[in-house]
Amino acid sequence: MYRTHTCGALRLEHVGQEVTLAGWVQRVRNKGGLVWIDLRDRYGLTQLILEETSSSEELLRQATSLGREFVVQARGQVIERASKNDKLPTGDIEIRVQALEVLNPAKLPPFLIEDETDGGEDLRMKYRYLDLRRNVVREKLQLRHRMMQQVRRYLDEKAFIEVETPVLIKSTPEGARDFVVPSRTNPGEFYALPQSPQTFKQLLMVSGFDRYFQIVKCFRDEDLRADRQPEFTQIDCEMAFVEQEDILNTFEGLVRHLFRTVKGVELEEVQRMSYAEAMELYGNDKPDLRFDMKIHRLTALAQGKGFPIFDQAEVILGICVPGAAGYTRKQLDALTDWVKRPQIGAKGMVYVKVNSENDLKSSVDKFYSKEDLAQWAQHLQAGPGDLLLLLSGEEAATRKQMSELRLKMGEELGLRDRNVFKPLWVLDFPLLEWDEESGRYHAMHHPFTSPKQEDIPLLDTAPGQVRANAYDLVINGVEIGGGSIRIHDRTTQQLMFKHLGFSEEEARQQFGFLLEAFEFGAPPHGGIAFGFDRLCAIFGGSDSIRDYIAFPKNNAGRDVMIDSPSKLAAAQLEELHIALALKK
Amino acid sequence: MYRTHTCGALRLEHVGQEVTLAGWVQRVRNKGGLVWIDLRDRYGLTQLILEETSSSEELLRQATSLGREFVVQARGQVIERASKNDKLPTGDIEIRVQALEVLNPAKLPPFLIEDETDGGEDLRMKYRYLDLRRNVVREKLQLRHRMMQQVRRYLDEKAFIEVETPVLIKSTPEGARDFVVPSRTNPGEFYALPQSPQTFKQLLMVSGFDRYFQIVKCFRDEDLRADRQPEFTQIDCEMAFVEQEDILNTFEGLVRHLFRTVKGVELEEVQRMSYAEAMELYGNDKPDLRFDMKIHRLTALAQGKGFPIFDQAEVILGICVPGAAGYTRKQLDALTDWVKRPQIGAKGMVYVKVNSENDLKSSVDKFYSKEDLAQWAQHLQAGPGDLLLLLSGEEAATRKQMSELRLKMGEELGLRDRNVFKPLWVLDFPLLEWDEESGRYHAMHHPFTSPKQEDIPLLDTAPGQVRANAYDLVINGVEIGGGSIRIHDRTTQQLMFKHLGFSEEEARQQFGFLLEAFEFGAPPHGGIAFGFDRLCAIFGGSDSIRDYIAFPKNNAGRDVMIDSPSKLAAAQLEELHIALALKK
Repeated sequence: MYRTHTCGALRLEHVGQEVTLAGWVQRVRNKGGLVWIDLRDRYGLTQLILEETSSSEELLRQATSLGREFVVQARGQVIERASKNDKLPTGDIEIRVQALEVLNPAKLPPFLIEDETDGGEDLRMKYRYLDLRRNVVREKLQLRHRMMQQVRRYLDEKAFIEVETPVLIKSTPEGARDFVVPSRTNPGEFYALPQSPQTFKQLLMVSGFDRYFQIVKCFRDEDLRADRQPEFTQIDCEMAFVEQEDILNTFEGLVRHLFRTVKGVELEEVQRMSYAEAMELYGNDKPDLRFDMKIHRLTALAQGKGFPIFDQAEVILGICVPGAAGYTRKQLDALTDWVKRPQIGAKGMVYVKVNSENDLKSSVDKFYSKEDLAQWAQHLQAGPGDLLLLLSGEEAATRKQMSELRLKMGEELGLRDRNVFKPLWVLDFPLLEWDEESGRYHAMHHPFTSPKQEDIPLLDTAPGQVRANAYDLVINGVEIGGGSIRIHDRTTQQLMFKHLGFSEEEARQQFGFLLEAFEFGAPPHGGIAFGFDRLCAIFGGSDSIRDYIAFPKNNAGRDVMIDSPSKLAAAQLEELHIALALKK
Repeated sequence: MYRTHTCGALRLEHVGQEVTLAGWVQRVRNKGGLVWIDLRDRYGLTQLILEETSSSEELLRQATSLGREFVVQARGQVIERASKNDKLPTGDIEIRVQALEVLNPAKLPPFLIEDETDGGEDLRMKYRYLDLRRNVVREKLQLRHRMMQQVRRYLDEKAFIEVETPVLIKSTPEGARDFVVPSRTNPGEFYALPQSPQTFKQLLMVSGFDRYFQIVKCFRDEDLRADRQPEFTQIDCEMAFVEQEDILNTFEGLVRHLFRTVKGVELEEVQRMSYAEAMELYGNDKPDLRFDMKIHRLTALAQGKGFPIFDQAEVILGICVPGAAGYTRKQLDALTDWVKRPQIGAKGMVYVKVNSENDLKSSVDKFYSKEDLAQWAQHLQAGPGDLLLLLSGEEAATRKQMSELRLKMGEELGLRDRNVFKPLWVLDFPLLEWDEESGRYHAMHHPFTSPKQEDIPLLDTAPGQVRANAYDLVINGVEIGGGSIRIHDRTTQQLMFKHLGFSEEEARQQFGFLLEAFEFGAPPHGGIAFGFDRLCAIFGGSDSIRDYIAFPKNNAGRDVMIDSPSKLAAAQLEELHIALALKK
């Protein structure tokens, strides 16, 4: 036995007991004939003490020669501390050491193993196993563990069955790029890693599993952005004999359960909004409802008064920023610069300060009378002290810019509190979206999403207007899950493939097994998938999913700790029937 | 709402209620003016009834035109059955149907969706989603789900943290072949899929996670045998600050918990045996202890009596088959043929029937006196009615053959009851095993397994005799888990790599990150991994792990349902910087 207790276990009630602890040396202090050692493990920190008067010279020499992060076993007696530390659960006691053994020495770590570290991100990625030693980092993964446990408990209680679907599947041209795996035993052929278990979970519904879930790794070979990882984890769920309402209720319940059990938060009612409404009011299909600041159209009000930029615009949009009339010229210039950045792309910004009912000051006073501005203010429901911000241009782009500006203002005004959670279902997504590059419609969700029955006739006349039985769950402006009621009959599925530009042959080759399955008695079904990494980040109050992944990859898709990917031996390639084809 | 109840929910207490059910048509019967429909879902079977006297003609026509596996929604009133069926939980009631709706028709399935089916294995693999509809198949996956839930509950209660380790890792030359994944963003480089998360879990111990587990997919590109799959699932566990005894106790507890909660079986004490003892007594490192029939050496007793085959043999081994003296000549010939099959490889078999104390009849009466045979019988502790079976030859081969023969006799005598569970820890495995092909020692477990301290000097003089701190958990002759106390210091790990034939450069290149991690304060640690598919098979009383995998691959590594692996488009290969290199 290496230890009788962990470093977080001992209390006043243990005083007098002889104990053995093992852990890492957090620090050693040496003062006035006393040596203190802080010993750390996952469970806590316990103070060890040695006294020059009572400890052997050898033991003292041993103690003072310990370095940070040495792995040590210590035997001694629990005693009450003279000066207690009420910040530490073990702060009432310390251990008077009788024997010390170094289980493993440690080189000086390349950065401080403390909550606040001096290590840069690259260094911490390379030595991820040391970064994970920091309490603040490890706690993120402990949160993830608790969330996994609670997801499983909730779904198990609701009669969901967890089924593992294969990782080695088949490449499909639809959607993002697949990672592929050459087959040694089937020369010239490849497996693909799943972007999601979509077709398998639908087949499980055809099999009568009724309620399926899986917490599962998925893979996308996309160009990585800051908050993307080539492998990520989903909570993947599917139910048979359900309508949209059943799914919304069941998974609202899941999220409510997680907030209650993991965070001790009673989640408020989940609001609902159509996609069209979200785009109109927030310029965005995942609005952050922690603050209001809705987007309004001012096109009719603001055109025809001789301001050329507005007069030429397809649309003029405005928001009312409450209590921000005091923004200085400098602050407003900074905002204007911000909206003009290439990432946002606006050409300019118009503001109106509503100082009082009769004192409105704008950046376009040349073109608009006080009465004009007062009309705008009224339309935006602005009162004294509020600031109006207006953007104009082509509708879709302006709406997007306005959405960004709204979020920025929410941020600046401190309205995006990480401890407030505003959940929202966004409903009735479009079925298809036009893709300029390929010159055809793509499935907005995926090709298995069902169109609304009443919109099916529009497929031939106005495909972009067809609404889907699709829904996203959004919390605080972050999409944490999305799903749909699926197509469950061959005719509709084939119609869908046709509208997505698949030839019959292509549809058969890629999804023949699913089309065929629909002919053997497929029940109505639907489901949802949650981005588990992102859900953890929301719960942990962090912006980056990377913090919630034990061994993440960097933006180039590399694991810098193990140095992967890496080259293969020629014999290995040969066995796999492939050769390198590098561009010069 | 598609249904008010499932097909397994209704009882006498519901009589009089109006209900709506949805499910699959199991069968339709039509007799004497009555139509019965058995409606099935995952939860059970409910009988629907229509009467010619009270149902509309349209409804009757609808009901009689339903085919097997049609998906149907039925509304009606719960009534008490005239003739109850006590084999069915819903057998006290039936539904008098008022309305029927076909939610989806079904083609005739290619095989019967019944517990006993007429479908061959190939057909059932191609239509796996229909095979999964059969209760007996679906129940296996429900068992798997319950086991997963219980594994997680037990380990969570024991303070283990589930951590997901990466699927895209680095290829290593050690062990079985890796599946690899070409990197698009790192031309000429490849990820590998993990054979196990071994190094990551060790790094988590270095990180101070203290107790880690994961139920995780692993991958091996090996030539498949009947009971192997290219992707399989492990319960992967690791603990810090432990000795072997801590691990044995913790995971004996896990298995006991699973038997109790999933099977309602109180598992008996787990026996312990060294590897050497298991090989000596059972010819096998995973002995089936449901029956005794130990292997004994008869070399000294049986040599020197002029029987050339025995006299030339390195070893003569025997077992006593209790109560089998009545085996006929034909049965014994069949056994002889069996041991001579190429898969077993024995040259012949000698038998002795112990008819009574003085009546011993053998196949070698020409060479051995009654007294000789009586001596053998005594050595094998045989009594009247027993049968002795002897094999001879080179030691390792004969021991293996004898092990097979022992299992065969256990089978023939009905001593391998699927409802009896005999767990066993096999301890003290050899650290290294000689590999003829490569002409060097390989790690028997893996290169991170620690040698027994007292055996380290043997590394230089007799490497094959070095024992490891390694253990397997065996149930009924099946290895369900294996693990070891790991090396946790750089010096020993480098020594180990040296003895495995790694150059310093190779060791650094492959496992540099681990060697370095050992220098930053690695705690003593050890772990175990269970083959989860096999554990499920043991619990379910099946020989094949394939039954416990929702979508298994066939022996050629193909998924015949989705037709994978498959060819890729030329553009896809080009993007991945690879080309096909097929042999003519």
